[in-house]
Amino acid sequence: MRHGGDILTYRHLFDGRFRDFSSNINPIGMPFGLKDRLLNGIKEITKYPDIQYRNLKSEIAEYLRCNTENVIVGNGAVEIINNLSMMFNRAVVVTPCFAEYIERPKVFGKEVVKLPLDNEFEINVELIKENIREGDLLILGNPNNPTGKRIKDYVLTEIHEAVKEKNAFLILDEAFFEFCPEDYDSIKLFNESENVCIIRAATKFFALPGIRLGYAYTSKAIVEKYNKIVLPWSVNTFADMAAECIFSDEHYITTSKEYIATQREYLLSELRGIENIKVYDTHCNFILIKLLDDNEDDIFDYLAKKGILVRKASSFEGLDKSYIRVAVKDFNDNKYLVNALREYQRWRKQRTTQEV
Amino acid sequence: MRHGGDILTYRHLFDGRFRDFSSNINPIGMPFGLKDRLLNGIKEITKYPDIQYRNLKSEIAEYLRCNTENVIVGNGAVEIINNLSMMFNRAVVVTPCFAEYIERPKVFGKEVVKLPLDNEFEINVELIKENIREGDLLILGNPNNPTGKRIKDYVLTEIHEAVKEKNAFLILDEAFFEFCPEDYDSIKLFNESENVCIIRAATKFFALPGIRLGYAYTSKAIVEKYNKIVLPWSVNTFADMAAECIFSDEHYITTSKEYIATQREYLLSELRGIENIKVYDTHCNFILIKLLDDNEDDIFDYLAKKGILVRKASSFEGLDKSYIRVAVKDFNDNKYLVNALREYQRWRKQRTTQEV
Repeated sequence: MRHGGDILTYRHLFDGRFRDFSSNINPIGMPFGLKDRLLNGIKEITKYPDIQYRNLKSEIAEYLRCNTENVIVGNGAVEIINNLSMMFNRAVVVTPCFAEYIERPKVFGKEVVKLPLDNEFEINVELIKENIREGDLLILGNPNNPTGKRIKDYVLTEIHEAVKEKNAFLILDEAFFEFCPEDYDSIKLFNESENVCIIRAATKFFALPGIRLGYAYTSKAIVEKYNKIVLPWSVNTFADMAAECIFSDEHYITTSKEYIATQREYLLSELRGIENIKVYDTHCNFILIKLLDDNEDDIFDYLAKKGILVRKASSFEGLDKSYIRVAVKDFNDNKYLVNALREYQRWRKQRTTQEV
Repeated sequence: MRHGGDILTYRHLFDGRFRDFSSNINPIGMPFGLKDRLLNGIKEITKYPDIQYRNLKSEIAEYLRCNTENVIVGNGAVEIINNLSMMFNRAVVVTPCFAEYIERPKVFGKEVVKLPLDNEFEINVELIKENIREGDLLILGNPNNPTGKRIKDYVLTEIHEAVKEKNAFLILDEAFFEFCPEDYDSIKLFNESENVCIIRAATKFFALPGIRLGYAYTSKAIVEKYNKIVLPWSVNTFADMAAECIFSDEHYITTSKEYIATQREYLLSELRGIENIKVYDTHCNFILIKLLDDNEDDIFDYLAKKGILVRKASSFEGLDKSYIRVAVKDFNDNKYLVNALREYQRWRKQRTTQEV
């Protein structure tokens, strides 16, 4: 699978209810007030959404604390990545990363330069500096998917300096921004920069993958270019309406942040007690796991029989079959996963003993 | 305005309620069973839509009476036009036409050849034959927007032969298909053709511009190419769900067709009794009007004061300021428009007399 959340493909493996750890969605569910807003607004789908998305952009600007003129919107974050990919000569990515950083530029026939992360999946800034050229589009996940690591602010500043110096452009894909500790806000960090676009989305944190709402902060020059190529009405009416209540739902936002932080700590600590796996640090709501002397297919099949869907990670450029990625979900699901993994290791041990 | 339905831009002109004749949406409103389906399905937006759109494509295939493997889907018809534009060397269009036939290929740096329709806005087949080359993408509205005319089946067959012979490709944009008399079905006509894509949408006939659902019938080879470039999850969950009830709502479909046919005849006949305008034939739910010795701005401003929004047509390539386009709406709205146009002509006459 190129992406998580592809439940239907694996439906035949499950007997009844199952737990999807392959897609990294806020386990609390959608914002509390959204259902009523959508119920009341259903009739609005018989009209076109505002082709200029005036309300939507103003809600986003308020949430991001920036000017409306610096906002772009898209049919999910991926449409924004897609449209920006068209504008630059060449893409530079660090691997492993979200597959679409590589796919979207390729669709437009652009060269994609893939630089590896180091052994602990940290960014090698020197490697980026050496490889970046004028007109390049550097695409970084912050935090990165599937590794879960947020780039430190001073590292980011150093990368940004290099990008500016070379007259290149930096996309920070911050689809998982709100799940992270509040150490810095990249929008404040790069306020007024002409060389950065910071992409976020309602998809993950607001648990709305089905509504398709991506948005970004960037320079006015890029906004203008973007508006010339973007599809008309690319954001649907429901996404437009959702903005009216999700971004101002402070209770939901605070609750979600606290809950995810607690569950992340719980899951990390429990997973680290399990044999034969290496659990990487993460700043957000998913965890990359290295399988020691094991492969993704065996563990995937075992967990599937227990009603658990995890993400095989070998489809990420730069990872082999010895990795899986799991989402941080609610307490019951997380506990269930931990127990299933413990059982799996016992089962493996037993099997190995029997084989010997 | 490049498109109709841009109500917000003109809101300041209206005092309270107004009638939007600038966007060509089924006046009956959305299909009867849809509201309940969406109400029941709201929680599904916390999951990704099926990345392969298995259900959606199967519902569409049944509606179009074709195989599922021949179906593509998009974020509105315009995304399908956009993605196909990428695949071909050059676009050929007939003007006036929907602005995006020209815009989308231009976004990808493609040359766009514009061939004029004749004085009665009929297609000049010889001109197309002379100009079409290998690798070209010919984009035709059927019926065409803003002229409202459907291409006769034998004309279409002749064009298709020329397209095949030159190894070019034909897009038929049939976004207004269901509003037309049932004289022929182009999907049957071009069954198994490797050189045609027939695009339709839920937007106009099912009155769902806000939900963003376009779909098309084409060859398996093009479906495969398309799936390689299409954005993941480009159709949102609501559009996916809507397909489960709109295409099988025969009562809604029959009622809409009959109602539009009646109102089209009514509006055409009333408009033809009004002085100083020429009313073109139409096969669908909008009417192009030529203003004799007048311009779109004066009539637009007059009607706006009466709470009526019409489409100025000079933004269509090949039309000057002497045209407007109006939608066929419900009886009360249509009558209101007719009366307002009569008053306008009386007012103009009076003004001219006073000036003399």
